[in-house]
Amino acid sequence: MPTAWFNALPRMPEPMQPPLHPGTREPIGPDDLAPLFPMALIEQEMSTALEIEIPGEVIDILRLWRPTPLVRAERLERALGTPARIYFKDESQSPAGSHKTNTSVAQAFYNKQSGAKRLTTETGAGQWGTALSFACAQFDLECKVYMVRTSFDSKPYRRVLMETWGAECVPSPVDDPSSPGSLGLAISDAVRDAVSREDSHYALGSVLNHVLLHQTIIGLEAKDQLAMAGEERPDVVIAPCGGGSNLGGVTLPFMEDAAVRLVAVEPTSCPTLTKGNFEYDFGDTAGMTPLMEMYTLGHDFMPPDIHAGGLRYHGDSPIISALVKAGRMEAVAYPQGKVFEAARQFATVEGRVPAPETAHGIRAAIDEALACKESGEEKVILFNYSGHGFLDLAAYDDFNHGHLLDA
Amino acid sequence: MPTAWFNALPRMPEPMQPPLHPGTREPIGPDDLAPLFPMALIEQEMSTALEIEIPGEVIDILRLWRPTPLVRAERLERALGTPARIYFKDESQSPAGSHKTNTSVAQAFYNKQSGAKRLTTETGAGQWGTALSFACAQFDLECKVYMVRTSFDSKPYRRVLMETWGAECVPSPVDDPSSPGSLGLAISDAVRDAVSREDSHYALGSVLNHVLLHQTIIGLEAKDQLAMAGEERPDVVIAPCGGGSNLGGVTLPFMEDAAVRLVAVEPTSCPTLTKGNFEYDFGDTAGMTPLMEMYTLGHDFMPPDIHAGGLRYHGDSPIISALVKAGRMEAVAYPQGKVFEAARQFATVEGRVPAPETAHGIRAAIDEALACKESGEEKVILFNYSGHGFLDLAAYDDFNHGHLLDA
Repeated sequence: MPTAWFNALPRMPEPMQPPLHPGTREPIGPDDLAPLFPMALIEQEMSTALEIEIPGEVIDILRLWRPTPLVRAERLERALGTPARIYFKDESQSPAGSHKTNTSVAQAFYNKQSGAKRLTTETGAGQWGTALSFACAQFDLECKVYMVRTSFDSKPYRRVLMETWGAECVPSPVDDPSSPGSLGLAISDAVRDAVSREDSHYALGSVLNHVLLHQTIIGLEAKDQLAMAGEERPDVVIAPCGGGSNLGGVTLPFMEDAAVRLVAVEPTSCPTLTKGNFEYDFGDTAGMTPLMEMYTLGHDFMPPDIHAGGLRYHGDSPIISALVKAGRMEAVAYPQGKVFEAARQFATVEGRVPAPETAHGIRAAIDEALACKESGEEKVILFNYSGHGFLDLAAYDDFNHGHLLDA
Repeated sequence: MPTAWFNALPRMPEPMQPPLHPGTREPIGPDDLAPLFPMALIEQEMSTALEIEIPGEVIDILRLWRPTPLVRAERLERALGTPARIYFKDESQSPAGSHKTNTSVAQAFYNKQSGAKRLTTETGAGQWGTALSFACAQFDLECKVYMVRTSFDSKPYRRVLMETWGAECVPSPVDDPSSPGSLGLAISDAVRDAVSREDSHYALGSVLNHVLLHQTIIGLEAKDQLAMAGEERPDVVIAPCGGGSNLGGVTLPFMEDAAVRLVAVEPTSCPTLTKGNFEYDFGDTAGMTPLMEMYTLGHDFMPPDIHAGGLRYHGDSPIISALVKAGRMEAVAYPQGKVFEAARQFATVEGRVPAPETAHGIRAAIDEALACKESGEEKVILFNYSGHGFLDLAAYDDFNHGHLLDA
């Protein structure tokens, strides 16, 4: 298991623009972020160190499920009849069932160290909320999760998981029970709560530089494991993109090798990277967060109610946005019907039932492998299996019975 | 990964009594079972070979998730303050989320080989139904699952999983929509279906000798992995017991080492081994199956509607029953409140949320470890983590909010 995270910031093709204060529109400094985050995370957010050591207390917990397996999808290769070799990194085996625990544990640790007693956050489908609840239980922190109401109502199991780990979970927006909610609105609720209480900080599950930093353990492990499997490098690394954390986690450690293609996959119904504008925008809907330069559909964009709740975000990680803008990373978009076809094919031959978010990456990996079948190329394809679908089976029910909105 | 299964039959302390024909009450032969099972499985049911080779086609699929990890629960040890070393074998990482796929793949393979086109089965909480659905998808067999109605209504996600793998799932009993159902009734439905069609066989997920045989891969792997971890032997091996398949799977490979205690854990509300009679009884409620000598609460016993659906069975595996009768295996029973306390403690410190069935084993393992704390003994405790609880979160919801029936 790696002992240091990989920092993308000093390796970016071009220097990144600073975040701006939501009131003054001037570049913000560490003090502006102090009401929300502990100083250790604020330093990581701006650090130019090439790598940053992982604290022993964090490693001790990550060891519960890390290193995660790198799996060769041989039965999928055979089913597709492709000469490509397909590998996936199985992040679904974490306690909360997704990659999100890689950063939740680190964030809970630094917050505990800073003296915070309580964390607030938002969650869409619930992957991030469950991950932070688990992490807070490890460090004896209180945890309050604002869950996008449409998911809160339709996916009660993730709320139960949060409560089992001792967290409190409420539907968002808190002040409008008639609204289905969105990630942007839930961020506003969580930030408003954190700044109103001395004992509380806020934790974000994606988008920010320090979140992607913590996720690079995925790609670092995959790099070592591919070498152990006798592969020099992947030809292409693929992951779904909501805010960009699992995508950044698996791709960034390969960013300096120009021979490796990096591919982001998003839903056509929330096409941030493929159809958004590259400009300064707020991270939340109410305009309380700093403005970041990123691909965005506008902070008041309301995506349709697709099943990949984790991909329904109007913006994107500034790091990911900058890599796409610079041409270092590609982006593709799929409608969810195509995504679920890939999910069912994968579930049939490889057994595992992926989360709808994860299935976006599988769709793109299958299409890469089918292109190799046409061209005869023996490419090495790596994708991130970011989470399992056991808590998203209502989506499969819709798909199996032809009720899926093909947005 | 082992290449042969461990056969308990030639190693039993005393010879086992033969199953009897439900009509004549005479010992049955292979031909009596032929309408239900392929001959290869019937031979395994009666085999006296010390080991039986695992077919390559079966190994090829088991490799999707096997060998499963043997995990040392160090954080649980620390939380308990015990000098014991606690290990668990993580069978939750199979595609269907439990140990059941170990036998479903083998059974689907032998049935395909015999020319069967379709399998029928019963399922309680749905673990077995999902496992057989996955296996049938691998060998292109049709699959029909009769699911105990109370679980069918309260746990729709497992039905969705079966359908995602292409199976058909209906509530049982089929002829009485007002009945909550039971495993015994669902077995009757599935057997009736299989014998009425030329193209169909029946598959059972527990109880029978060949099912336990296929599950011994758990204990065989654990034995090797404990040796790799530097442990000479476990002092005690623990698993929950419904029909006996995961219990047999993890314990039988240790049965010849008298220094290893073997412990079965069951719910007090369905106390087959601790309060049942050792006698001939039917495997199903309608009296269609052969009579087996086993511990039983009577084939018309209706257990309360506890959350560990997989442990609501009136009888027990004849192999397990004979080992308990001979004093080679111990049995303990717990009410579900105590079981969920252990589940939440485990989930908090080890992160993983267990299935309610699995949590019975965790309860007993924790109590063994606490006894070691009293006595100061550095025992090695091994338990089988038979399945995850992601599809059983309604049970945790009841527990978290004080609504659990403490039966």
